[in-house]
Amino acid sequence: MGVNENVQKPLDRLAEALASEMEAVNALIRQRMASRHAPRIPEVTAHLIEAGGKRLRPMLTLAAAKLAGYDGPYHVHLAATVEFIHTATLLHDDVVDESRQRRGRPTANLLWDNKSSVLVGDYLFARSFQLMVEPGNLRTLEILANASATIAEGEVLQLTAAQDLGTDESVYLQVVRGKTAALFSAATEVGGVIAGAPEAQVRALFDYGDALGIAFQIVDDLLDYGGATETIGKNVGDDFRERKLTLPVIKAVASADPAERAFWARVIEAGDQHDGDLEQALRLLDRHGSMRAARADAMDWAERAKSALAELPDHPVRDMLSDLADFVVSRVA
Amino acid sequence: MGVNENVQKPLDRLAEALASEMEAVNALIRQRMASRHAPRIPEVTAHLIEAGGKRLRPMLTLAAAKLAGYDGPYHVHLAATVEFIHTATLLHDDVVDESRQRRGRPTANLLWDNKSSVLVGDYLFARSFQLMVEPGNLRTLEILANASATIAEGEVLQLTAAQDLGTDESVYLQVVRGKTAALFSAATEVGGVIAGAPEAQVRALFDYGDALGIAFQIVDDLLDYGGATETIGKNVGDDFRERKLTLPVIKAVASADPAERAFWARVIEAGDQHDGDLEQALRLLDRHGSMRAARADAMDWAERAKSALAELPDHPVRDMLSDLADFVVSRVA
Repeated sequence: MGVNENVQKPLDRLAEALASEMEAVNALIRQRMASRHAPRIPEVTAHLIEAGGKRLRPMLTLAAAKLAGYDGPYHVHLAATVEFIHTATLLHDDVVDESRQRRGRPTANLLWDNKSSVLVGDYLFARSFQLMVEPGNLRTLEILANASATIAEGEVLQLTAAQDLGTDESVYLQVVRGKTAALFSAATEVGGVIAGAPEAQVRALFDYGDALGIAFQIVDDLLDYGGATETIGKNVGDDFRERKLTLPVIKAVASADPAERAFWARVIEAGDQHDGDLEQALRLLDRHGSMRAARADAMDWAERAKSALAELPDHPVRDMLSDLADFVVSRVA
Repeated sequence: MGVNENVQKPLDRLAEALASEMEAVNALIRQRMASRHAPRIPEVTAHLIEAGGKRLRPMLTLAAAKLAGYDGPYHVHLAATVEFIHTATLLHDDVVDESRQRRGRPTANLLWDNKSSVLVGDYLFARSFQLMVEPGNLRTLEILANASATIAEGEVLQLTAAQDLGTDESVYLQVVRGKTAALFSAATEVGGVIAGAPEAQVRALFDYGDALGIAFQIVDDLLDYGGATETIGKNVGDDFRERKLTLPVIKAVASADPAERAFWARVIEAGDQHDGDLEQALRLLDRHGSMRAARADAMDWAERAKSALAELPDHPVRDMLSDLADFVVSRVA
């Protein structure tokens, strides 16, 4: 996007170090998103998959496998699996959130319809399960099946918890682990497992992905309240308008006086929002230092991600993963 | 119900012969539909799972395993897997079809919302994958993952094919294999595989499930145009109003004169329906013998299902499966 060119380097460097494997992953994705009978499937999938996502999650699998000394070929299947799970959840999320834009383009539910998004998402889930069976490794199967369940559970939890002012930071963390960190940690863990890495390394890879995913989501939630020092092209206030209780607001609610609490109850719980409410919310977040505190949490998770890497072999890819953790939080530094 | 008491016997006899295993399946289903974090999940699932479905599909898995001489314990996991996949697709189907009733009760999308149905469906899919991993058998994993992909593909195909008068019987068969027969045949096949049955028996079990599923769906489509000799409490004309091109109509379109073709184009393709159109459709189905011909196809598939059983050991359960094929089509006899 221009302004962040400099700090985007870790992802670009990872992409370069993993270029040939990523090419294999992309080829496998294109091959498996086809459908002999239903042309609607590759249409919808291509719209999303080829919209220029960063392929962060499959890259994590490849990086983990490389760090653990794996030579292939099954990290490619696992990486494609992870991207398919991610794409399926995006399709369903956009239906659930009634989103109209994703990656700067109209969403599939808008271009086609909700039905297509639900069913093509199901197809990609099924394809992901076919892919994950192919390496014939029961432990990676278990990890990815568990991650899928955690993701769906987190999404359902968010449905009920997001508009409830009683939601505290521990529930928030469960939701975040579900909607984001579960797939990050599964992505890195299966890379280690398929490589036959020692248990301590597998655990470290899991911890890295888990902490990176949590940092990533907190940053995303901060950016939604304009928590960036630079423009990043994201609309401020989407979560507010959708009445999603995220970390900055949870912190502000915890410090709220009765009048402030009544404000949050009206705009989030009752969904009764008027002109000026977003500005009032931003003032409250500022008054209680909630943005600053959430930012500190994100930094802390990024540090935990980096610490986990100590267990892994010294390798250029390890440095890139460490820089990636810094990069993720640099968006709100 | 009542009126069909006599012909319902095959299912009841199967349920009796498999009572202790079915009890284990039901216990496993209840255990796995729980969620530590999101109470919405068991609420939605229980609404559907405990609404008194016949559990036909898991019973097929148990019956196949028993026929092939298996003593357990993993047929129970596979049977529960099959029921979870089925329940997940029902939740998503009801969203896609905007259904308001299922098994005589309001649908989950009506009682809660579409979001809950989509996400709880995803959760059940993920739970089904966790369950199918547990037996540690790669071949049953492959069969069930493939079935899931075929189901989703069939549903997407139906989206585009159902309102297109160019849809012929071969496309209809693909849709039916996807939406119904793929899970029937996977249910019976995995029962044979987990039992270590000889290949010819596994193939026969697949063929039985496939043919039974096709017969079952054709009958369902016939009943939608009132193809029953007795009242079965199903609304006539739902598929017509939803503009779903099913076998009786496909046959009538194939024999249509230009005026009749214009009628079908208006009501199905354009969706421009008025009072009296359903009655006109029924007259056309009658004029061309389309109901009778579709009924003959259903009978033929039931016969194929029964023939496939010849490959399997002589056993009371085999007779029950044979009677089940007769029973399925007896609803339109």
